[in-house]
Amino acid sequence: MNIASRMKEISPFRVMELMAKAAALEAAGRSIIHFEVGEPDFATADPIVRAGQDFLRGGHVHYTAALGLPQLREAIANLYLQRYGIEISPARVVVTAGASGALLLALGTLVSPGDQWLLPDPGYPCNRHFVRLLEGQPISLPVSAAGNFQPTAAAVASAWTAATKGLLVASPANPTGTLIGHDTLAELATTVASRGGNLIVDEIYHGLTYGVDSQTAVALNDEVFVINSFSKYFGMTGWRLGWLVAPEHRVREIEKLAQNLYIAPSTLAQHAALAAFHPDAIAILEDRRREFQARRDVMLPGLERLGFRIAAQPQGAFYIYADSSRLAADSQALAETLLEQVGVAATPGLDFGNNQPRSHMRFAYTVDQARITEGLERMEKLLG
Amino acid sequence: MNIASRMKEISPFRVMELMAKAAALEAAGRSIIHFEVGEPDFATADPIVRAGQDFLRGGHVHYTAALGLPQLREAIANLYLQRYGIEISPARVVVTAGASGALLLALGTLVSPGDQWLLPDPGYPCNRHFVRLLEGQPISLPVSAAGNFQPTAAAVASAWTAATKGLLVASPANPTGTLIGHDTLAELATTVASRGGNLIVDEIYHGLTYGVDSQTAVALNDEVFVINSFSKYFGMTGWRLGWLVAPEHRVREIEKLAQNLYIAPSTLAQHAALAAFHPDAIAILEDRRREFQARRDVMLPGLERLGFRIAAQPQGAFYIYADSSRLAADSQALAETLLEQVGVAATPGLDFGNNQPRSHMRFAYTVDQARITEGLERMEKLLG
Repeated sequence: MNIASRMKEISPFRVMELMAKAAALEAAGRSIIHFEVGEPDFATADPIVRAGQDFLRGGHVHYTAALGLPQLREAIANLYLQRYGIEISPARVVVTAGASGALLLALGTLVSPGDQWLLPDPGYPCNRHFVRLLEGQPISLPVSAAGNFQPTAAAVASAWTAATKGLLVASPANPTGTLIGHDTLAELATTVASRGGNLIVDEIYHGLTYGVDSQTAVALNDEVFVINSFSKYFGMTGWRLGWLVAPEHRVREIEKLAQNLYIAPSTLAQHAALAAFHPDAIAILEDRRREFQARRDVMLPGLERLGFRIAAQPQGAFYIYADSSRLAADSQALAETLLEQVGVAATPGLDFGNNQPRSHMRFAYTVDQARITEGLERMEKLLG
Repeated sequence: MNIASRMKEISPFRVMELMAKAAALEAAGRSIIHFEVGEPDFATADPIVRAGQDFLRGGHVHYTAALGLPQLREAIANLYLQRYGIEISPARVVVTAGASGALLLALGTLVSPGDQWLLPDPGYPCNRHFVRLLEGQPISLPVSAAGNFQPTAAAVASAWTAATKGLLVASPANPTGTLIGHDTLAELATTVASRGGNLIVDEIYHGLTYGVDSQTAVALNDEVFVINSFSKYFGMTGWRLGWLVAPEHRVREIEKLAQNLYIAPSTLAQHAALAAFHPDAIAILEDRRREFQARRDVMLPGLERLGFRIAAQPQGAFYIYADSSRLAADSQALAETLLEQVGVAATPGLDFGNNQPRSHMRFAYTVDQARITEGLERMEKLLG
């Protein structure tokens, strides 16, 4: 049997087994509260749905250009002007099949075999697998609650070797919900650039921040690669649409790869997404953002009352990365117990890297406040 | 500048430059006849559009499982029973983001760095780029009109080396429209299997065959990887949906990779595709198939009258791969002349490999018969 050598190092989402168990329990009549789900629970906002329906009416769902619809690339460039006050050329915007597509295109044009890339740990697990797919070497950069679960320039400088070619950070981050301050981001960019490396910043949770504004990494310089998505703030997960802002002189290479790997992103999703920037859609999305904030403000103190430790304040996304070591020696076992005994599903740290995963769990506030309260009450029965 | 080493060997679609020139001419008021476009000109069939609209009504466009909706996997498995009389488990069916997604998942789990894969030349250009992306080595297997533009078992055996790990063939093929007979396919499978290699068969043009039935490679054995798509026969290009039938014992590895690289295929496309197998959709698609056949039957003799040589009968897809060497020394130059002087766009052979590309052009019959006739008349003015 020929199995590609890389597959030994590409892990499945461990939470899937937990989710399968949860589904089996639900099928058997048990009530399960889902704190494990990494996608917004809201339906796609009406103006976006309507734009999709209008486009569908004609049935003309043909391929678009590999880099995306010109009018969508312009609308995305305009978002940077409206939201962040930064002028960028639409030529730098590449529309992609989800942020996943943006990651593969950015890394595919950057990573040669053996290249090392620094990735904060804990972090989004797929990042290291994208690097590995391309025969690069993902290097775990441990981050801790004391450092807001984000790397410092000093840590990057000290981890950098002759083989290091880049750094990929996320702000807000999954699983921790923490942000990188713009000054720190600028220091990271300088550290990477002065070593001849590349910086990719994952901003797929941008817009979902609470009580804090975040500047985009696009403001740093013209060489940074910034990844974003219509999945999270815009609530369009199942549509599979994202984008990449790339250095303009890299776009031709990215286009070559996009033509070959994807042909084009979903036409229907692109036409629907044109409506995502309209004020009537934004009004709905901002309401949802406020609802996420209210949920966080219920869940966070609730988890602390149960004995979880949350040393780094989650200010974005919809995740709380909680230290469970006062409650259990192994978060994986705790997750199983919570599911089986009180019907609460949450994601054990193992999905996010090798840095103290067994003492952490991720709780997603992607269910309404009543369910969050009930989940906390259920957990209290077990842990209280 | 760090540009991944692979990018030197990943070519853009050359026809894109020709298409840009055609668009510029059209913008300047010129009429252009498009024989270069590799997608059906029809709108998505009504029953499929309606299923998409029905699903959209709720707006619940959330992620599906990475392997796709269970009911769609079942419907695809059932297609093999209905159309080919072959029973397969839905567990072997992986729904993907276009056939592109199926190619990356199949090759991603099979190709280790340095592995050689045999690819017929001329062929679909992206195939060699997928192999190269994964640091494998695409090996061109020249095929000719005399051999129906398909490889023989003897040619595969003779090209096989210690480093060869697989063969990827297509039936019907792009750019030639030729099929592989089932006996030849069985010989290819035996040749590959006896050398410990893997066989991938691209069947994305299955269903679009004219005057001939084609058996699926799924019938060969349980170890073959078969790629298919909703883009061509089902006319759903811009929806970006395809599938892979894989050996059952490989599906877990494929699922791991799918979770990491795609999260999931488009939810909306999957729900719409459920309607693609209904008799009312099939009736429309069969009408279109007959229309494609009628177009081929206009275009093929027309091209021959102009002096093109078509030695291998195209029996599927919507392409004619024509030898232009009696008309011009260089098909690239001929393509430019045809576009500029008589407003006919066709794809020069260069996009399909290194095997005599300058003496061939691909004509797609993705426009109606009146346009085909007009295109032939225009070319006659220049070539007649």
